[in-house]
Amino acid sequence: MSERSLIDWLRQRIKGPASVLVGPGDDAAVLAPAEGGRLVVTVDAFLEGTHFAADTEPARIGHKVVAASVSDIAAMGCHPMASFVTLGLGRARDEAFALALGEGLIAAAERYGAPLAGGDITSWDRPTAVSVTVLGETRGLEPALRSGARPGDRLFVTGSLGGSLLGRHLDAPPRVQEGVFLNGEAHVTAMMDVSDGLSTDLGHLAEESGVGAVLVETAVPIADDARRLAQQDGTPALRHALDDGEDFELLFTLAPDRARWLAEHWPFDLRLTEIGTITEQDVLLEQADGTRVPLEPHGYEHHWKERPNA
Amino acid sequence: MSERSLIDWLRQRIKGPASVLVGPGDDAAVLAPAEGGRLVVTVDAFLEGTHFAADTEPARIGHKVVAASVSDIAAMGCHPMASFVTLGLGRARDEAFALALGEGLIAAAERYGAPLAGGDITSWDRPTAVSVTVLGETRGLEPALRSGARPGDRLFVTGSLGGSLLGRHLDAPPRVQEGVFLNGEAHVTAMMDVSDGLSTDLGHLAEESGVGAVLVETAVPIADDARRLAQQDGTPALRHALDDGEDFELLFTLAPDRARWLAEHWPFDLRLTEIGTITEQDVLLEQADGTRVPLEPHGYEHHWKERPNA
Repeated sequence: MSERSLIDWLRQRIKGPASVLVGPGDDAAVLAPAEGGRLVVTVDAFLEGTHFAADTEPARIGHKVVAASVSDIAAMGCHPMASFVTLGLGRARDEAFALALGEGLIAAAERYGAPLAGGDITSWDRPTAVSVTVLGETRGLEPALRSGARPGDRLFVTGSLGGSLLGRHLDAPPRVQEGVFLNGEAHVTAMMDVSDGLSTDLGHLAEESGVGAVLVETAVPIADDARRLAQQDGTPALRHALDDGEDFELLFTLAPDRARWLAEHWPFDLRLTEIGTITEQDVLLEQADGTRVPLEPHGYEHHWKERPNA
Repeated sequence: MSERSLIDWLRQRIKGPASVLVGPGDDAAVLAPAEGGRLVVTVDAFLEGTHFAADTEPARIGHKVVAASVSDIAAMGCHPMASFVTLGLGRARDEAFALALGEGLIAAAERYGAPLAGGDITSWDRPTAVSVTVLGETRGLEPALRSGARPGDRLFVTGSLGGSLLGRHLDAPPRVQEGVFLNGEAHVTAMMDVSDGLSTDLGHLAEESGVGAVLVETAVPIADDARRLAQQDGTPALRHALDDGEDFELLFTLAPDRARWLAEHWPFDLRLTEIGTITEQDVLLEQADGTRVPLEPHGYEHHWKERPNA
């Protein structure tokens, strides 16, 4: 049984409670507390040997687990509020490791607006396992979901993609201000973060929205890391940009008039690239020669067993 | 470095953010969302080999991780709202294990008023690690903290204690209705759940409140499980009641007039026992012969390395 089928099962199984406006399937859940307002919640596990290598500097582990989780709140276009962490700490780890991981985690949580508010630490005879919960506030905004893209919408991505395994997956900041701006000012129709890889995540967005998409190959912003990794492993840099994941950039869609507005009003230094169009059906890659082929998802969840550990 | 000193360090380190009204050190954190109201949050990790044995029936694991977490919301005298879970699933586990754990977890979450609203599942080559987040609502109540006990208050506990390792630690329900009643109607001055063992947890309550306590040995309600375990291992049943933990009963204090009120108005079948008094300082055990000795904490966190795995 794959993780995906387990998640699908879970999703089927837990539909329903009225206070849960958005359940599994988006970057974060959206709750409606009885006292009013909206609450956005994401939970993620980070396991030694899977999400970080055993020899990773602990402060960078601390940064990553927070940044990747806050990225899910950013992807909802909401404001981070507070973080919580559980730590299953390998007994082989010394005090310096625990404190450095803690300091990295606390610093990142403060920096990204989700100060650490609680946690649970247990020692065990196993590799380190970290679980992070981040709560977000809407402050009057509607959370940006994956499901709102409509045919004719323009497809965008922030930053550049690929090769994060060279180290960026540990150090990349979540796009918090950008996410709030894209939601509150630019009025994205759909948004998510690129965590499983663009080829996989665009499929998720299309599926959740019940639409198709055309991704323009020559428009995909390729990170320098993707080119460096391509030189090392012979896989084309474009494939790294399409498949690697853990970029923590924002993938989003806009109605055409809002796309024009955004081109004039984007206030950040961060690169912003239009990479395609939303269509009625089928997720396609428009190649350099103009031909269109199905965009095969080769991201994280489809080959997780083979994934490098660093 | 012990878990306790790590937790103390964490606690020192993360004081501060204005939106966090109550941080680490209580059963759950209390947040003040910008949109109003109060939010109560608990996170806990449950590790195979530490919190449950490798051969535990998966549905009971699912129950325990939710019940123990909801118990923290009950201990704040608040209403459970929603649950989130991360699961690091050992690859050796089969589909039946994953589904049974999931069903147990989902059923418990529904039963205790905190329906599962999201999660994250990852397979790894390690024992199973589960992390649970439960959110609670105050619905106008002030959360009941550990820190409000005052000299002269009466000390109570629900249910009976000890021997939970025989199986009750997996199956015990959280005292949700009781907690809300004790907070909202009986006006407890302090409350917590008995998870580390009465001898340890009473020390926590006294420390957080800056008070002492006298625990009356002959009043401690001893569970049948404690007596059964005493017959097996030769440790007195009373010691099991004082030290075993994972009872998930509520330990609380009341001003004397409210204690009288409660005796007349307790609406539940669950046993309710006055077990002592809050004093100015020192946590003492009043023995059967009337002599008072220091109550040594022998609960979970002080001998976790020796703790049985079932």
